[in-house]
Amino acid sequence: MYFHDNKARPRLITRSLDPENQESPMHFIPFLLTIPNTLFFRRNHFPYPILTPDAFSLKISGSVNNPFTIPYTDFLKLPAKSQKVLIECSGNKRAFFKEKVFGEQWENGALSEGVWKGVPLKHLLKYTGIGSGVKEVVFRGRDHGIKNNENRNFERSLPINKAVQTDVMIAYEYNGKPLSHKHGFPFRVIVPGWYGMASVKWLTEIILIENNFSGPFQTEDYVYHYKDGTSEPVTENHVNSTIQQPLDKQILKSGTHWIKGIAWTGSGRISKVEISFDNGQTWDSVKYENAPAKHHTVSWTYPKEFETGQEYHITIRATDSEGNIQPAEPVWNRKGYGYNASMQITIKVE
Amino acid sequence: MYFHDNKARPRLITRSLDPENQESPMHFIPFLLTIPNTLFFRRNHFPYPILTPDAFSLKISGSVNNPFTIPYTDFLKLPAKSQKVLIECSGNKRAFFKEKVFGEQWENGALSEGVWKGVPLKHLLKYTGIGSGVKEVVFRGRDHGIKNNENRNFERSLPINKAVQTDVMIAYEYNGKPLSHKHGFPFRVIVPGWYGMASVKWLTEIILIENNFSGPFQTEDYVYHYKDGTSEPVTENHVNSTIQQPLDKQILKSGTHWIKGIAWTGSGRISKVEISFDNGQTWDSVKYENAPAKHHTVSWTYPKEFETGQEYHITIRATDSEGNIQPAEPVWNRKGYGYNASMQITIKVE
Repeated sequence: MYFHDNKARPRLITRSLDPENQESPMHFIPFLLTIPNTLFFRRNHFPYPILTPDAFSLKISGSVNNPFTIPYTDFLKLPAKSQKVLIECSGNKRAFFKEKVFGEQWENGALSEGVWKGVPLKHLLKYTGIGSGVKEVVFRGRDHGIKNNENRNFERSLPINKAVQTDVMIAYEYNGKPLSHKHGFPFRVIVPGWYGMASVKWLTEIILIENNFSGPFQTEDYVYHYKDGTSEPVTENHVNSTIQQPLDKQILKSGTHWIKGIAWTGSGRISKVEISFDNGQTWDSVKYENAPAKHHTVSWTYPKEFETGQEYHITIRATDSEGNIQPAEPVWNRKGYGYNASMQITIKVE
Repeated sequence: MYFHDNKARPRLITRSLDPENQESPMHFIPFLLTIPNTLFFRRNHFPYPILTPDAFSLKISGSVNNPFTIPYTDFLKLPAKSQKVLIECSGNKRAFFKEKVFGEQWENGALSEGVWKGVPLKHLLKYTGIGSGVKEVVFRGRDHGIKNNENRNFERSLPINKAVQTDVMIAYEYNGKPLSHKHGFPFRVIVPGWYGMASVKWLTEIILIENNFSGPFQTEDYVYHYKDGTSEPVTENHVNSTIQQPLDKQILKSGTHWIKGIAWTGSGRISKVEISFDNGQTWDSVKYENAPAKHHTVSWTYPKEFETGQEYHITIRATDSEGNIQPAEPVWNRKGYGYNASMQITIKVE
């Protein structure tokens, strides 16, 4: 027998190359495991930064008692912890708004998860001390480019009370290996429960400030602008879910198929995942493949007998422990963030 | 400076893994060149066939005077020719039907092209002779699986008058290398001007028949079933075009941008490609990057000055030398083949 490697492999889905934006092939990879680094979604605002020797240290400055700069090799010696955390772009599912919005047309795959290892920011701030008037912590990424006719770095802030939560960390490993260059090497902030814009890559400096940060990625982008003229910042991941299999408009053979997917939330943990075959009139519960826990996805399955010649509408909706539930319709906002309407697919059985 | 490979590469877009169906990332690869084998779209009906030693020969049988079986190594010694040919799946753009149809939801990338080398079928049939009553030529692929509860090979036929056209060939090379396993090694039919289902991969046998072939991929699939109850077989590629850049719903900076894309047809050659910025009320001509020729794409460009704060609707439509023109609306058919409505995108300038 003549040997060929004929394995079919899922690939990233290219949304743009300059800067690089690519989706995870989320309908074809199990979330029960961690997402391999090569299939982790890529979302960039600027070209990949060049790492000069000074990139191998992290500076903490601003309103602190003891500003310091710590070299990469010393950083690795600090007490660290590992946690499985999902990161979801706030533009995930943007393509599904019926009233279209401009920007990268992400479908379901601007979401990945795996195990991050790093040092809680809280511990670092114990060394520096926190100035008494501090309101926010600014994270400066090394990536930069033209934004509003100025050369800007990617920078985001967190309120000080959020920044000192124990799960906010400065990560240097993903799935047991140093961060890859494309995903933030050497340092990346991880803010569990918040959309991905908060998890700044190529972190070069942490600056404590006594006012409100107003960089363009804080006050122009990543703001919900609603139809009624009000607005609010993008923060926590909305409760959400995705059907991974079958695919929308797929033709199936009759018999029993396992419907499967994931659910997640930024608030508390998933408390309920329901499935409907009658457009939401009646709901049944799905089976979890892993225990719902904070900040990572629940994989779920549901066996269903499909009959020849029929079409099926399958709707899924998740609820979290804070009482948030996926709406039937998304909340439209001008930049298309935070889509979390319940997902429906239609399949046909032949 | 620390070295990283940070090149952003386009990837195939996974539509299914079993069987493997993947789109070319057509918005991110130039068609002026040939599409690399690794980015050629993949469309399969069955698992990849295992190639046992008998796969290394090609049999011609049925209503012929001298049936024969020719080994692969002998086949390579026959007089051969090379031609640049596009192959487009008849389901290309299926996802764009507003009234949704079931099946793989191909967007723009079920289309690739490159240089095929092989032997004109006409020359092979000179060796075998053609029985006087021959109506069709059946091509049997080695790939097989369950279809209508039977184990079937993928098989398609051509009318004898089409089969003996000089450009119909049995190819064994793509872009100067032996066909890859995923694209039909060792032999693949190439039928320029017809949708891809005719270009049978893993060709194992050619059978001349005196009646009409009625295999399931001939009479069930690859048939246009129209709303009025009529039907007809899928054959030639419809005149078509795609805007590669910019992307639909993209946000651009003000200034001059080059709108670019491709156009193609199965009938004659492209004779006109027009662009409109007012929903088709007025049209302007684009510039060709290569001369329109039979059976491969024309790459076109159009420079446009975009002003801050504006939205632009960009429509493109192609006409061929047979007088076929892309319609404003697609011709809906139950299985979603042959979509060729003119393409419109909307962009915003900030």
